[in-house]
Amino acid sequence: MTTTVRALLFDVFGTVVDWRGSLVEGLQGLSAKHGVQGDWERLADAWRAEAYEAILPQIEARSLPWLPLDEVHRLALDELLPRYGLVGLTTAEVAWINRLWHQLTPWPDAVPGLTRLRQGYPVCALSNGNVSLLLDMARHARLPWDMLFGADLFQRYKPAAEVYLGACALLDLEPEQVMLCAAHNGDLQAAKELGLATAFIQRPREKGPAGGEVSAGGWDLEASDLQDLADQLGLPAMEGERAEPGD
Amino acid sequence: MTTTVRALLFDVFGTVVDWRGSLVEGLQGLSAKHGVQGDWERLADAWRAEAYEAILPQIEARSLPWLPLDEVHRLALDELLPRYGLVGLTTAEVAWINRLWHQLTPWPDAVPGLTRLRQGYPVCALSNGNVSLLLDMARHARLPWDMLFGADLFQRYKPAAEVYLGACALLDLEPEQVMLCAAHNGDLQAAKELGLATAFIQRPREKGPAGGEVSAGGWDLEASDLQDLADQLGLPAMEGERAEPGD
Repeated sequence: MTTTVRALLFDVFGTVVDWRGSLVEGLQGLSAKHGVQGDWERLADAWRAEAYEAILPQIEARSLPWLPLDEVHRLALDELLPRYGLVGLTTAEVAWINRLWHQLTPWPDAVPGLTRLRQGYPVCALSNGNVSLLLDMARHARLPWDMLFGADLFQRYKPAAEVYLGACALLDLEPEQVMLCAAHNGDLQAAKELGLATAFIQRPREKGPAGGEVSAGGWDLEASDLQDLADQLGLPAMEGERAEPGD
Repeated sequence: MTTTVRALLFDVFGTVVDWRGSLVEGLQGLSAKHGVQGDWERLADAWRAEAYEAILPQIEARSLPWLPLDEVHRLALDELLPRYGLVGLTTAEVAWINRLWHQLTPWPDAVPGLTRLRQGYPVCALSNGNVSLLLDMARHARLPWDMLFGADLFQRYKPAAEVYLGACALLDLEPEQVMLCAAHNGDLQAAKELGLATAFIQRPREKGPAGGEVSAGGWDLEASDLQDLADQLGLPAMEGERAEPGD
């Protein structure tokens, strides 16, 4: 299998970056600055759930028009803020909160792991995030992507087939030449059904105390993190990390 | 003007990479390997002209269906090879020649210049090349792009407005927040008419003995190369180049 793979696609939120921990940390900054108190862990969980479980399905069902993920996040946030007693924030403050998704922190293995993997394969984001969000995040976190396949390129959200097959077509590769690497069974299942190779990445801290997804099995590879994935794909260790320009 | 610019877009063929010199060098390799003789400079010029002056206008006029630039190059090559007496090449050899566009050599200032510019701005390709071509080229030439805006994302070719405005929309920026950097007046004129900022990059060796385009004037900046552009945009010099993984 891995001998035919010519490019790696990565789910981003949860697989490469710690969205939950980063949001909580960012929101705690709001506490420190404005004296606003909140149950930030619950808000982060509810925000993700509102966006992914309430709004994205409506977009995919065409009961809402296409919106990029930044606007999905904003709709969800506007819905949730009053429920969490966060009233009276300025427009700039709400926009600042929404931009936290552009500044997520990578898991510690992500940058060195991607850097190793990139020696052997193009490494590309395949994310429900929009291109501008992924670009800001890459510059903030120094993620060495070869290409950003944001959902706005396809105006569809994963797990829609158009996203996976659209990225393969833009790479000029057959699905079996492309491996999706993700911490989520549903994402991998959709890719597998389309013929892509699959690698499950364990992220046991993705959801904080609630843990992370456990592999449902049946994937081409399973890895404990991106360094382990690089080991399994036979890529040499590196002599220390290379410098990347940030923002 | 430059205080409002938030991202830089670069034309690639001619502005960042030396397409003509690289094609000629690659074709000379064919001479050495197979004893095939040819007027490689004339072939390179004719190839570019056939693709850009004969085929792309037909695609834009919808008298040909959409084809990515790789296929445009191949159509043009198939047309030209017999005219240049290059008959009897195998399919693999013709495919190899067509792939020379994926392996073009950057102008000497391009990688260090883009690396400096990237400290202050996202630097993105905005090219008639398809994404897979641009990705291979970036890995080959170690071009530190933040994003590849290939024409296949828009299924239109420059100077169509959809290409420039599509990239601005994906960057979530207004046209006046984006600067196109190019060695070609026509490309810059199209961008300027849409409200983008513009920088003319001098490439006096682009067309070999025929020179390069001379600025028509009226651009926001004119630079002798990408290091000069970085100087004019006030970016600090760098202590030597950073390492980038290649292929």
